[in-house]
Amino acid sequence: MIPEKSPRVEELEARLEAFMEEHIYPNEARFYRESEEIGPWGVQPVVEELKPLAKKAGLWNLFLPESDLGAGLTNLEYAPLCEIMGRSHLAPEVFNCSAPDTGNMEVLVRYGTEAQKKAWLEPLLAGEIRSSFAMTEPDVASSDAKNISSSIVRDGDDYVINGRKWYTTGATDPRCKILIFMGKTDPDAEPYRQQSMILVPKDTPGVKVIRALPVFGFYGVPDRSAEVHFENVRVPASNMLLGEGRGFEIAQGRLGPGRIHHCMRLIGLAERTLAKMCLRTSERETFGKPVSERSVTRERVAEARIMIEQARLLTLRTAHKMDTVGNKEARAEIAMIKIAVPNMACQVTDWAIQAFGGGGTSNDFGLASAYATARLLRLADGPDEVHRDQLARMEMKRQRAANDAGGVRNWGAATSARALGPE
Amino acid sequence: MIPEKSPRVEELEARLEAFMEEHIYPNEARFYRESEEIGPWGVQPVVEELKPLAKKAGLWNLFLPESDLGAGLTNLEYAPLCEIMGRSHLAPEVFNCSAPDTGNMEVLVRYGTEAQKKAWLEPLLAGEIRSSFAMTEPDVASSDAKNISSSIVRDGDDYVINGRKWYTTGATDPRCKILIFMGKTDPDAEPYRQQSMILVPKDTPGVKVIRALPVFGFYGVPDRSAEVHFENVRVPASNMLLGEGRGFEIAQGRLGPGRIHHCMRLIGLAERTLAKMCLRTSERETFGKPVSERSVTRERVAEARIMIEQARLLTLRTAHKMDTVGNKEARAEIAMIKIAVPNMACQVTDWAIQAFGGGGTSNDFGLASAYATARLLRLADGPDEVHRDQLARMEMKRQRAANDAGGVRNWGAATSARALGPE
Amino acid sequence: MIPEKSPRVEELEARLEAFMEEHIYPNEARFYRESEEIGPWGVQPVVEELKPLAKKAGLWNLFLPESDLGAGLTNLEYAPLCEIMGRSHLAPEVFNCSAPDTGNMEVLVRYGTEAQKKAWLEPLLAGEIRSSFAMTEPDVASSDAKNISSSIVRDGDDYVINGRKWYTTGATDPRCKILIFMGKTDPDAEPYRQQSMILVPKDTPGVKVIRALPVFGFYGVPDRSAEVHFENVRVPASNMLLGEGRGFEIAQGRLGPGRIHHCMRLIGLAERTLAKMCLRTSERETFGKPVSERSVTRERVAEARIMIEQARLLTLRTAHKMDTVGNKEARAEIAMIKIAVPNMACQVTDWAIQAFGGGGTSNDFGLASAYATARLLRLADGPDEVHRDQLARMEMKRQRAANDAGGVRNWGAATSARALGPE
Amino acid sequence: MIPEKSPRVEELEARLEAFMEEHIYPNEARFYRESEEIGPWGVQPVVEELKPLAKKAGLWNLFLPESDLGAGLTNLEYAPLCEIMGRSHLAPEVFNCSAPDTGNMEVLVRYGTEAQKKAWLEPLLAGEIRSSFAMTEPDVASSDAKNISSSIVRDGDDYVINGRKWYTTGATDPRCKILIFMGKTDPDAEPYRQQSMILVPKDTPGVKVIRALPVFGFYGVPDRSAEVHFENVRVPASNMLLGEGRGFEIAQGRLGPGRIHHCMRLIGLAERTLAKMCLRTSERETFGKPVSERSVTRERVAEARIMIEQARLLTLRTAHKMDTVGNKEARAEIAMIKIAVPNMACQVTDWAIQAFGGGGTSNDFGLASAYATARLLRLADGPDEVHRDQLARMEMKRQRAANDAGGVRNWGAATSARALGPE
Repeated sequence: MIPEKSPRVEELEARLEAFMEEHIYPNEARFYRESEEIGPWGVQPVVEELKPLAKKAGLWNLFLPESDLGAGLTNLEYAPLCEIMGRSHLAPEVFNCSAPDTGNMEVLVRYGTEAQKKAWLEPLLAGEIRSSFAMTEPDVASSDAKNISSSIVRDGDDYVINGRKWYTTGATDPRCKILIFMGKTDPDAEPYRQQSMILVPKDTPGVKVIRALPVFGFYGVPDRSAEVHFENVRVPASNMLLGEGRGFEIAQGRLGPGRIHHCMRLIGLAERTLAKMCLRTSERETFGKPVSERSVTRERVAEARIMIEQARLLTLRTAHKMDTVGNKEARAEIAMIKIAVPNMACQVTDWAIQAFGGGGTSNDFGLASAYATARLLRLADGPDEVHRDQLARMEMKRQRAANDAGGVRNWGAATSARALGPE
Repeated sequence: MIPEKSPRVEELEARLEAFMEEHIYPNEARFYRESEEIGPWGVQPVVEELKPLAKKAGLWNLFLPESDLGAGLTNLEYAPLCEIMGRSHLAPEVFNCSAPDTGNMEVLVRYGTEAQKKAWLEPLLAGEIRSSFAMTEPDVASSDAKNISSSIVRDGDDYVINGRKWYTTGATDPRCKILIFMGKTDPDAEPYRQQSMILVPKDTPGVKVIRALPVFGFYGVPDRSAEVHFENVRVPASNMLLGEGRGFEIAQGRLGPGRIHHCMRLIGLAERTLAKMCLRTSERETFGKPVSERSVTRERVAEARIMIEQARLLTLRTAHKMDTVGNKEARAEIAMIKIAVPNMACQVTDWAIQAFGGGGTSNDFGLASAYATARLLRLADGPDEVHRDQLARMEMKRQRAANDAGGVRNWGAATSARALGPE
Repeated sequence: MIPEKSPRVEELEARLEAFMEEHIYPNEARFYRESEEIGPWGVQPVVEELKPLAKKAGLWNLFLPESDLGAGLTNLEYAPLCEIMGRSHLAPEVFNCSAPDTGNMEVLVRYGTEAQKKAWLEPLLAGEIRSSFAMTEPDVASSDAKNISSSIVRDGDDYVINGRKWYTTGATDPRCKILIFMGKTDPDAEPYRQQSMILVPKDTPGVKVIRALPVFGFYGVPDRSAEVHFENVRVPASNMLLGEGRGFEIAQGRLGPGRIHHCMRLIGLAERTLAKMCLRTSERETFGKPVSERSVTRERVAEARIMIEQARLLTLRTAHKMDTVGNKEARAEIAMIKIAVPNMACQVTDWAIQAFGGGGTSNDFGLASAYATARLLRLADGPDEVHRDQLARMEMKRQRAANDAGGVRNWGAATSARALGPE
Repeated sequence: MIPEKSPRVEELEARLEAFMEEHIYPNEARFYRESEEIGPWGVQPVVEELKPLAKKAGLWNLFLPESDLGAGLTNLEYAPLCEIMGRSHLAPEVFNCSAPDTGNMEVLVRYGTEAQKKAWLEPLLAGEIRSSFAMTEPDVASSDAKNISSSIVRDGDDYVINGRKWYTTGATDPRCKILIFMGKTDPDAEPYRQQSMILVPKDTPGVKVIRALPVFGFYGVPDRSAEVHFENVRVPASNMLLGEGRGFEIAQGRLGPGRIHHCMRLIGLAERTLAKMCLRTSERETFGKPVSERSVTRERVAEARIMIEQARLLTLRTAHKMDTVGNKEARAEIAMIKIAVPNMACQVTDWAIQAFGGGGTSNDFGLASAYATARLLRLADGPDEVHRDQLARMEMKRQRAANDAGGVRNWGAATSARALGPE
């Protein structure tokens, strides 16, 4: 059900671990400091400094499955590497494996024309520019993507775009040069054919990055969320992706990989958080013994370990299923990890914060930002509730079909002598 | 990490499913009725009727790993078969794969002398007799097995046994002929060498099956628990298993397989319960629509599906680890499933009961007894708390060792310009 | 918000406590033994033996509020007394304060004619007979009471009744002489006017008590549930309660008091369970110290105490609100306790079972039956989900009205300089 | 158990509500904007602007119980007023009722000399200065206050103070002029007599406010936490509070009121959050209907309402107990609310964030900062785990005493005929 790691992956893992030890962990304090200093509109120098080192180390663009543009790894092979990167907020971008770029690059690889690839995929793969994904809107509940109501109107050889977006991750980044925009080309089409995706260069007139959006108080880390308005933004018709009305199709294709990457990274973050919790409680004493020896600490450490193991196995199996039967056939599994992993990571982090005492709420131990990262992902790319709803529909349908296919509905009911009484 | 099913297992699975459809499900109502009628001291005729059919169908003793006495399946291979049997309270015994016999047979295979095997293993494998495991004592908290204080005293060529036991599963069954008894041979030895295990034929003078113990109100199903007193019970010295002071060693070897079988069966029971929940809520309407269409139902169905998948993957990986590195090296994983699976099954069953309304608390849908089965297993073979404690100790130790081995303890702390203020 | 206890209540409390010490607790073992022996179709001799003593002690019919038939206590005054009775499964009936009789007597007091009172209320108040309430049906989801589909058809001076009922508590009791039956008199009326309630003497031809229904494996304790079929049951038209089509109105009036009594009793049961948990864990040692000194035990004891205190305060306030503004105006509060209290009691009992080890699942400590009592009440008189739905509707309506009434909807949103960036 | 509100309180409530409508809610956006702009080291102009209005409106220093310096309200009377203030992060300070000043003023009222009162209490009551409480230390687990190891050494007519503190709320505020410092005067005394509290003017040489500490990413709101070092800080011996070795005694007296105020405010915040959740979900549609009509939303709204009501009642009863039997006798109740209320507020806020979608994690709706406020209070003034431990000890002790006092330990065990079997 889940194949063993190949020697190639083990070798990459070893190199990645070494890079983490040498370049990532020692630079985290600097990264957080620079993030606060530059705020949401700047670039942390440490990131640009480390990117060439990662490229040189051959740890670059590991994410692209089934493609000769990246490392050519399957999702399953990429999973343990992505998990390692996820241990640190600094790492993913250093390896050119961070959201939303990985998802956007996948879109361009799968659905882009040669010209689109040339213009945007190449510099993205080179780490020269960054990108955004403009889908969520402040004015509607975007968890039902059919609600998205920005307009993309054909006008001669162009499309004219209007709408307000937020949670457009990365738009405040000065390196961001291109946005993938989702909006309605045909409000009268059947519901799943109304939306399209189109490429919008950030410097197009009418694109206004209104403001940065903090996430649980954090600007820039974990996420550079932004509000972006589009006012009569005109782009050439050739910027359309795949064709009018195919926005849902692309979203479906994009969100699978994006979601599993998020999950892999969160597992790494949860592992690191558990390590911190174990070490800290081993060192601090209250009422005459280490906090690690209290059974309430142990209960949580044990549950955290169980939750992480289960989440990882489910994620690996999902990756393997994506590799073998395709993203679409694996959509129930993708929904499962999208629900399970962020909830697991929230719980593990919450326990760790509690174990650290007041300091757990500060920035000193990286726990508050870890919580923000995990908590955001119970909402980003669809809230838990929407995924549970879809997963349950699939389950119900499958169960009813199995039953209709001749299954003996056997409740096992029986009326005993004892029940029947004396009469 | 988890190999695919072999063709042999798939073939066995198909035959087992067919047998379940033909013989097990249709006889469940009868099984429950007979169970109530005969009470805890009798034998359900339906069980004895079906056992020869299972034997004839080649679905007999599938549980014994690494042995030519059974089907020769690995733990991983047995897992999906055990899960199928677990769907029904009737099934495991029909296939001679029920607790506590499987665990006891494993003990005899591993630690029994030829004479002991001849006397007890052979009729157990043939399904002619049943057995009990007498470990837990009413007078001490037996979750700390060092507390167990029954005595086994050498007297010439015999041992003389005294003590009170309960949760001696199966002892009220008239077919039960042999008990494996755990007690102290040397109260002065170091703690883990005080206990021994010895074979006690049930008809030995002084063995008194005092009473049946109900489990959540149920006598006999899910479990035939009993209180058994041993008063100056004299057995030949050759009944000792493995040697004096080796009780913990045997317990360790016995409990791994016993625990994973319980987990596999519970996963099957949880699957069946989820199926019932999906079907029932699809058929019942309240306030104008099927209960299955309420989002609160869907949330629970989705979470149940996620929990079952995670539990199954963790159990399969544990089975594979037992097969490849041994029960001892897999003890962290065994602890994990022993905690995770019964809790999962309790939660899934609780949701199902709620979805069924009042009827869920009756015997009509098999949910109350399923709950009793799952709930008991949060205590049987060690309560959650003890397993969590041990798991956490292993985790803490591992984390501290990793840290000491030169890991940069990197909290990522940084003091930002914003924090430092105006001075 | 919640007045202090009056001296009269304190005096009753003291007498009730003394009676519990003298007559109830010492007879519990006997009660449970007799309950198992007689099964669901008999009467425990101990109950009939103690009833005259309670009557003589002036501890009889304490439940009836605003009535000179009982003790004349308000709901608030009755609450602490009912809680004390609730500590023991034996107690409520001994004091003639058990379900479903108290609810049925309230119906007769409020809605009965003089003749109906004479015939049924008087012997019920005297403890000479018992009664049942036949509402829930196996064939429909009765949590939506509009689904109830038994028929009550006028035929001359009679009504003819047909239908299948279950969870008709008490119907297997040989002392049960009268049932309050709910069914449709007019399927074409508007939804809340279709149902009526009518008195059906149990010995009327066509009333068939089909079987006893176990609750989590228990027959008779905590509840004597039964399935009862009504086949062309003919009763005089004068047996109708209040009038055709007024079934919902009566149900509304009946269920408030019935629900709060259940809650009060459950609080008493939870208190006793917590006491057991504290004492048992203080006496049992594992790994070198009492279980009571492990922090995981303490966490649960503390949470149990908090949950009980909160549940009691909410119940007392609900009682006071029922006394001062009426059952209808207190319906949000009644819904709250109907949800909160059984869930609290389930959780407290579950912790206690876990603290007791395997023994917690037996009948030896009264915990499994306490769990069954609490768990059933998450379903009886409406499942949690229905009460939450109704409570949320009231809350939403209130919040929207408050907002419309000129409330400044103030989210507190502000766009900071930091968000606005460098432009 | 909880008296009704007096007319005086109702009148104050009405005036307070009016002030909130007129001055607080409309200024919240400005307050949040200014907070971000000034950062943790400045003062929001809006606060200083509103304080005179509150003073003029007679809504000033409402918190001081049993004192003619404040409004002379009891804790119970203050509770509903404090709850109203708690709805807004802006409000408490405007009314001079914010932490840590209220706790510090209570200390000065109770334990201060006339000179100390003159110097510090008067300007605090006048809202001219602010204060800090320096107790928690980064180097030890301060949840066990005995661990606190800063030193206060007598040297002639002075004390010389050394130590590192953090979570010294308010120290970065330029208006903060005085700190109450806790440290050891006698490391050799018995554990609870080693600590003392002493007044340290912030401008004393050696007092170094090292940095601001963010709380879940937020600087300044909800809390202005800071790290403060004390290096050979010399203050006159007359600055000692109450006497050497009495630090624990003062802490005990201080923390009760401080904790209940936090709880009252959190209840107000939770109420407002629930209101936001109801309104938002009523306005947003997904998949064809308002989010408010999904049963999963309703479940959470209902549970939130129940949790808030229970928390409020418990808090009010605690306040009344503090008023009638004193803070010390009410310490079990204070522990209960200190655990229950922040956990309740975390849960309610978490649900609200989920209901708001991505926007819930931003600052636009005040939910992320509400979460930070609530989450911090699971740690501030002692983590949940310490309070649960102490509460459980009290409970266990009480239960054992009750049992020893002649209570019949009655488990209700009984061995039934069914259990005893056929022999």
